[in-house]
Amino acid sequence: MPVHAVAPRSAREITHYDLDTDVLVVGYGCAGAAAAFEAARAGARVLVLDRAGGPGGSSAMSGGEIYLGGGTPIQRACGFDDTPEDMAAYLNAALGPGADADKIADYCEHSVEHFHWLVDRGVPFKPSLWDAPAWVPPTDDGLMWLGENSWPFTEIARPAPRGHRPTANDFGGRLLMQCLTDAVESAGVRTLFDTCATTLIRTDDGAITGVVARRYGRESTIRVRRGCVLTTGGFVDNDEMLAAHAPLLLGHTKVSAGTDDGSGIRMAQAAGAAVRHMATGQVGISLIPGLAARGIVVNDKGVRFVNEDTYPGRIGQAALFTQGMRVWVVLDEEAFEAVPEQQRWGVRPTHVADTAEELGAAMGLPPGALDATLRRYNEFAAGGTDPDQHKAARWLRPLRSPLAAVDVRAGIRPPAESGDRRGTGASVFTLGGLHTDRQGRVLDLDATPIPGLFAAGRAAVNLHGLGYISGTSLGDGTFFGRRAGRAAAQPH
Amino acid sequence: MPVHAVAPRSAREITHYDLDTDVLVVGYGCAGAAAAFEAARAGARVLVLDRAGGPGGSSAMSGGEIYLGGGTPIQRACGFDDTPEDMAAYLNAALGPGADADKIADYCEHSVEHFHWLVDRGVPFKPSLWDAPAWVPPTDDGLMWLGENSWPFTEIARPAPRGHRPTANDFGGRLLMQCLTDAVESAGVRTLFDTCATTLIRTDDGAITGVVARRYGRESTIRVRRGCVLTTGGFVDNDEMLAAHAPLLLGHTKVSAGTDDGSGIRMAQAAGAAVRHMATGQVGISLIPGLAARGIVVNDKGVRFVNEDTYPGRIGQAALFTQGMRVWVVLDEEAFEAVPEQQRWGVRPTHVADTAEELGAAMGLPPGALDATLRRYNEFAAGGTDPDQHKAARWLRPLRSPLAAVDVRAGIRPPAESGDRRGTGASVFTLGGLHTDRQGRVLDLDATPIPGLFAAGRAAVNLHGLGYISGTSLGDGTFFGRRAGRAAAQPH
Repeated sequence: MPVHAVAPRSAREITHYDLDTDVLVVGYGCAGAAAAFEAARAGARVLVLDRAGGPGGSSAMSGGEIYLGGGTPIQRACGFDDTPEDMAAYLNAALGPGADADKIADYCEHSVEHFHWLVDRGVPFKPSLWDAPAWVPPTDDGLMWLGENSWPFTEIARPAPRGHRPTANDFGGRLLMQCLTDAVESAGVRTLFDTCATTLIRTDDGAITGVVARRYGRESTIRVRRGCVLTTGGFVDNDEMLAAHAPLLLGHTKVSAGTDDGSGIRMAQAAGAAVRHMATGQVGISLIPGLAARGIVVNDKGVRFVNEDTYPGRIGQAALFTQGMRVWVVLDEEAFEAVPEQQRWGVRPTHVADTAEELGAAMGLPPGALDATLRRYNEFAAGGTDPDQHKAARWLRPLRSPLAAVDVRAGIRPPAESGDRRGTGASVFTLGGLHTDRQGRVLDLDATPIPGLFAAGRAAVNLHGLGYISGTSLGDGTFFGRRAGRAAAQPH
Repeated sequence: MPVHAVAPRSAREITHYDLDTDVLVVGYGCAGAAAAFEAARAGARVLVLDRAGGPGGSSAMSGGEIYLGGGTPIQRACGFDDTPEDMAAYLNAALGPGADADKIADYCEHSVEHFHWLVDRGVPFKPSLWDAPAWVPPTDDGLMWLGENSWPFTEIARPAPRGHRPTANDFGGRLLMQCLTDAVESAGVRTLFDTCATTLIRTDDGAITGVVARRYGRESTIRVRRGCVLTTGGFVDNDEMLAAHAPLLLGHTKVSAGTDDGSGIRMAQAAGAAVRHMATGQVGISLIPGLAARGIVVNDKGVRFVNEDTYPGRIGQAALFTQGMRVWVVLDEEAFEAVPEQQRWGVRPTHVADTAEELGAAMGLPPGALDATLRRYNEFAAGGTDPDQHKAARWLRPLRSPLAAVDVRAGIRPPAESGDRRGTGASVFTLGGLHTDRQGRVLDLDATPIPGLFAAGRAAVNLHGLGYISGTSLGDGTFFGRRAGRAAAQPH
């Protein structure tokens, strides 16, 4: 994928425009769809383009979880009382340090309304709960826990499950995008595919009034009369940006449709936009959460470093950012058998042994280290407590011979479409991006909106600080995408 | 300290200039001094300004260590063979991930030349070695280890000490700055203090041709005919920037002269400059390295997480970024007495006990955890090995009752000049900043130099990725400051 120059072009130099629109949406994932729909509904002429051959982006590849709460009908049907305040307290803790408390409060206050907006677009949610840690449950249950019932969050906010899942036979992202693109089409939005926006067009006063794009090698110019919304995704596919901002995310499997090249972030930065939290990312690691919760997770000293029943992305961030991905799940036969085979995603132990001493030696751990860890874990687990990592009593049980270990780095192969590169055990995407206000306006270094420029989705930073919880990408992408679309549709 | 708007001013709107110079250097720490000296020596008229009442900045407050090697006369006099290749191998490992290998190679290749440049400016180095981990040795020895002889670096590069220290009765930074400012004055550079550069002046073509500054509340304009060099330091004094880029560095004691407000970074970004590695920082923690090396360092699970004889800034980064600063040094009477009282900086144990069990309980650690850690450490230390953390045999010795712990968070009070805020145990400064090339030219998002704009010191990123080693700030500040000064002096 070529990396294009992004220095803005002067509007003075543009003598001809190939296309003309009120609102241009660059990137047709969930944030772009939400923005295009709302802009059209507000009465603007809207054009949405994508560099791929059709809509979807990373959103269509995702599990489909949307982080919603504060008392949705699905939560109530499953017997959970929830409030915007509990939801906000959890998100501030789980998405921090550096999370935006104002945007989180706003998001939580309007979360039930956003649930209904999704339902009105045809997104189905089944009122039943999947009640165990998982990346993607193997059922069509519409609700799941995403760390809310794990330490330390149980001490911070009243727990309620908030992962809302579209009812689908496979990953729900495709269904979500189908509903959203149907809505966009019904709203009369024009679409243009195989088209890559490369640079913004800017007046001497700094207002964005158009975009230069490339399609099949030919350059075209688009006049934008009201607002340009950048929903181009993150930058996990741009290794140069990763090296400059997030070197720990380099070299892992990239969670994207291959088009998260950071182009929108770079274009806006070149026009004076500020960015936030460029170093951080979501880290999915190839452990089966159901196995991890029933066993223990250890580092290369044979030491536990996290509560294994928490949201698995928290284990992933800890594994990559604090342990260099030198991480194993250690478990026994009972734990392994407790997870049905079809939910193990083909994971097999990389080491088996009759004793912890032998298992640790086979794993290459320091002598006696794993044995000491297991003796300590088993002793406390027998009494139903975990003073070291605070795993919930429900998952505590002494582990018995024979023992097995799964090297997370060898666990799950990267998907075929990622090419033939060997996995590191981690699948990552970036969380950093453009600084925006609650209306989706892109802010410059003085925190002043850049006229005519908006952003949402992973090209922007809304809720997130350093932490991540599944469902907050589709969640804040659609939520602030709607805001950006409405704001961009206003004449100026 | 007011935060000024940084959106660049159009050269078209500036009708009058109060001052006129070929080269303007903004910020008079070590990088600014080196740039000003070299620019004047290249024949340019040079003006250097600082928002403080005199020169020095953070450089004058520092210990004065300068990272130099590859075979300096001081290294040779102390009996060490060193090569630029070994020096580069160490720096790539210690300053990464994300360190700039090209700049490191360049820096190491010319390090002996840079040593002589410093000596020619009058900076004295005594040919003797301080041979133990330390923040600042209590002697006037001119050479010290900065992690080169600790694991894993001993397996990566042939160890040689490279911390070069100006011969001074106290911290060497003041002496270094005295030598450099004497040189700048002799070179005929004009100086202007109590003057704060607020915004860059830019032509429609994007070239920087001047600066707007404020002095005692009055705005003035400075015409810059050749180049403007930003040596304004990092952004540890700007909490808004910390929240956006490096939230883990918020709330700790700030290592600065109070003027590291990120203004140069923001001004340049607003003019289209790219930045790198904004999330990372140096973390000095209030442990006495000589005590730590003779004891063990544990987290709030009572578990070791680092080799205690390494460069103490590595312990600091691990403590803050992976352990949330919940960190203690545990040691015995023999270890405590081995460090002379005047080298303990007033540190006293926060907990003492006859047994590890009692000590762990007093520290609030999980039951039995510290006891298990100490038994394991002592068992291996008796045999002269440390399979867990690879501390060198020289520092291994079983720890005997009575035992003591020092809570790093309560160890050393912040200096009086930092105000009356309570310390967290960590003293931090930022490492992220402007993307520059090897000539100190500031690069935009397309990696193209912005005409007329240069940067060095902590306002720029040169050698560093996520890691840090003492001496690389004064080192790359003076080294690339010289480059930036020479480049800025060229007519364009």
